[in-house]
Amino acid sequence: MEINELHTDPDTKARAGLLQTDHGDILTPVFMPVGTAGAVKSLSPEDLKSSRAQIILGNTYHLYLRPGTEIIHQAGGLHKFIGWDRAMLTDSGGYQVFSLNDLNKIEDDRVIFRSHLDGSQHILSPQISMEIQRDLGADICMAFDECTPFPATENEVIISLERTHRWEAASLNAFRASADPYSHKQHLFGIVQGGIYPELRRQSAEAITALDFDGFAIGGLSVGEPKSAMFEMTELVTDILPAQQPRYLMGVGKPEDLVEAVSLGVDMFDCVLPTRNARHGILFTWDGPLHVKAGRFKADFTPVTESCTCYTCRNFSRAYLRHLFNVNEILVLRLASLHNIHFYQELMSAMRQAILNNQFASWKHDFMLRYHQSKDQSEVA
Amino acid sequence: MEINELHTDPDTKARAGLLQTDHGDILTPVFMPVGTAGAVKSLSPEDLKSSRAQIILGNTYHLYLRPGTEIIHQAGGLHKFIGWDRAMLTDSGGYQVFSLNDLNKIEDDRVIFRSHLDGSQHILSPQISMEIQRDLGADICMAFDECTPFPATENEVIISLERTHRWEAASLNAFRASADPYSHKQHLFGIVQGGIYPELRRQSAEAITALDFDGFAIGGLSVGEPKSAMFEMTELVTDILPAQQPRYLMGVGKPEDLVEAVSLGVDMFDCVLPTRNARHGILFTWDGPLHVKAGRFKADFTPVTESCTCYTCRNFSRAYLRHLFNVNEILVLRLASLHNIHFYQELMSAMRQAILNNQFASWKHDFMLRYHQSKDQSEVA
Repeated sequence: MEINELHTDPDTKARAGLLQTDHGDILTPVFMPVGTAGAVKSLSPEDLKSSRAQIILGNTYHLYLRPGTEIIHQAGGLHKFIGWDRAMLTDSGGYQVFSLNDLNKIEDDRVIFRSHLDGSQHILSPQISMEIQRDLGADICMAFDECTPFPATENEVIISLERTHRWEAASLNAFRASADPYSHKQHLFGIVQGGIYPELRRQSAEAITALDFDGFAIGGLSVGEPKSAMFEMTELVTDILPAQQPRYLMGVGKPEDLVEAVSLGVDMFDCVLPTRNARHGILFTWDGPLHVKAGRFKADFTPVTESCTCYTCRNFSRAYLRHLFNVNEILVLRLASLHNIHFYQELMSAMRQAILNNQFASWKHDFMLRYHQSKDQSEVA
Repeated sequence: MEINELHTDPDTKARAGLLQTDHGDILTPVFMPVGTAGAVKSLSPEDLKSSRAQIILGNTYHLYLRPGTEIIHQAGGLHKFIGWDRAMLTDSGGYQVFSLNDLNKIEDDRVIFRSHLDGSQHILSPQISMEIQRDLGADICMAFDECTPFPATENEVIISLERTHRWEAASLNAFRASADPYSHKQHLFGIVQGGIYPELRRQSAEAITALDFDGFAIGGLSVGEPKSAMFEMTELVTDILPAQQPRYLMGVGKPEDLVEAVSLGVDMFDCVLPTRNARHGILFTWDGPLHVKAGRFKADFTPVTESCTCYTCRNFSRAYLRHLFNVNEILVLRLASLHNIHFYQELMSAMRQAILNNQFASWKHDFMLRYHQSKDQSEVA
């Protein structure tokens, strides 16, 4: 999978490009809203389109357990099942198997785990993850890896990395040996791990890029390590990844993190933050996050952001949103999520434009200055 | 307030007409979705318009407590506060004061009650209810009455009725003595009470219609009495109400109840049933209610109703809705509510058309036959 029309900012490593999928083109850098269980929480496909989302993410682990891949396969794939006709990416299920399961048993070639829902026993492996992701039918699938926990000793990371590289090679083999089950092409991304050990990150990046993946992800970050380490590892890896293929930093992040990571050459992101924060009344603005539940907004009849064109800002005041949170009216979960997803899409679009204008460095400087002046900044989740 | 273009079905008492408000015309018979605390649960104004809702209801008691009338007044009224530019009706607050408060104290000219939220003490009276409803600014306001509980002895109803008639006269005086606070005209409806005692209902209807109200409601029904009594009282009252003014049966009801009451000459309805049932997975169809959570729908990839033009039916399957309920994705609360409100609007529209075609009796016969054939009928909430 080539990243087309690639343009790199002259003063940073920021890139703008275009990814082609059978469910439409994706302008990069791109943020992918997370639709864990077949829905981006509170938002319909129409809402997502109104926010200009180009691609969303689904979670293999959750969808495998409920409704199960058999039903999604019968529906004609995840796109059809959930009514989303733009691009989609699924993860491998590995992250949840490791993070939601205390009782998982890792063997050489598979993981035996218990459902967090009912304790029933299941098995995930490179081959099974690929089978499931074929049934789901996302445009971009992810290799089955082990997300190394943080903290981990160097030796633990070495052991984990050896397994991850073996599993990813097996994922690629299984993926290439199977055909696209629906009428569109599926792609497979490899994932670079290595904790926060520069030499192991380098080894992993070299090992994974030696394989014939369609794109590359940086995994195992944003899991509790210092932010400086996250960006150090990101830059180390993007310097090794092939320029012509897309790069995806998994699970990141806050607006300021996206801006920083774009400046280091990342093209793709996903994170639950905009929707999760929305449900807690934290709305993103160019002046930093705004805690709309605060009492000082009770008679503030201005929108969250005057210049914002989202449905929420065009129609409702901070006072109304605050009231809806106050009385637990679920409508506000959608209105807040709509705004935050819209903001994230605007943010990516603004970055893309700055890159194309060869002005990303100064754009980034201005963004950071304005964003961090927010009174609410210290409270941000 | 005249009901214009009034057309009465030749074989029943069913009426079709048109109500003019400064927030648009209302074709009758009409169903008003309930927006208790400033939102029809889970639905945006855009959603309501897509369902062709012409008027919604707000609850004075809830809005008085939160956010308070001062904030709504500052916002420029409830329409502006919640972003709804079509017609609106508010109740008097009396129903909640009596039904949500065990500790209320009824005096001759007022009720002292405690907030169900924090126990704080408040007073409601005809004058105060009118003041609040002026601040809210609904197109149609309701007189402050006592909703006589069921069951009640004849003597209890007589005492309650005497008070209700006094309060309603005081409501009318207070309302007429105050000016429209915003740039649109407000109207006041009187409410007929009388429990299920025909003679008391008759007395109440005569007493209330002797006053200069803009329209008339039938209150104190759908509170636990037998359905036969509800319809008997409804017909007794509609036979007395002036033909040229709108008639509103408060708190009703199920689709089959709306059809029956329309045949008895009712023009307006409100009920939480379509939205509440939606949130419990009960979706209304012409073939009766459908319990979409049921296991038999897990691989049913047809929409709730093939012929339905709502967003939900145009885009999603029963299997997907069932899955969303199963995994507690809040998106489904909106998708289900959208469908049910759309169904209720379609139902009212179909009744109106049948009345205009002078075919309401046969339409009603066909509707009831088809609606009650549903397998799910016995389960309906």
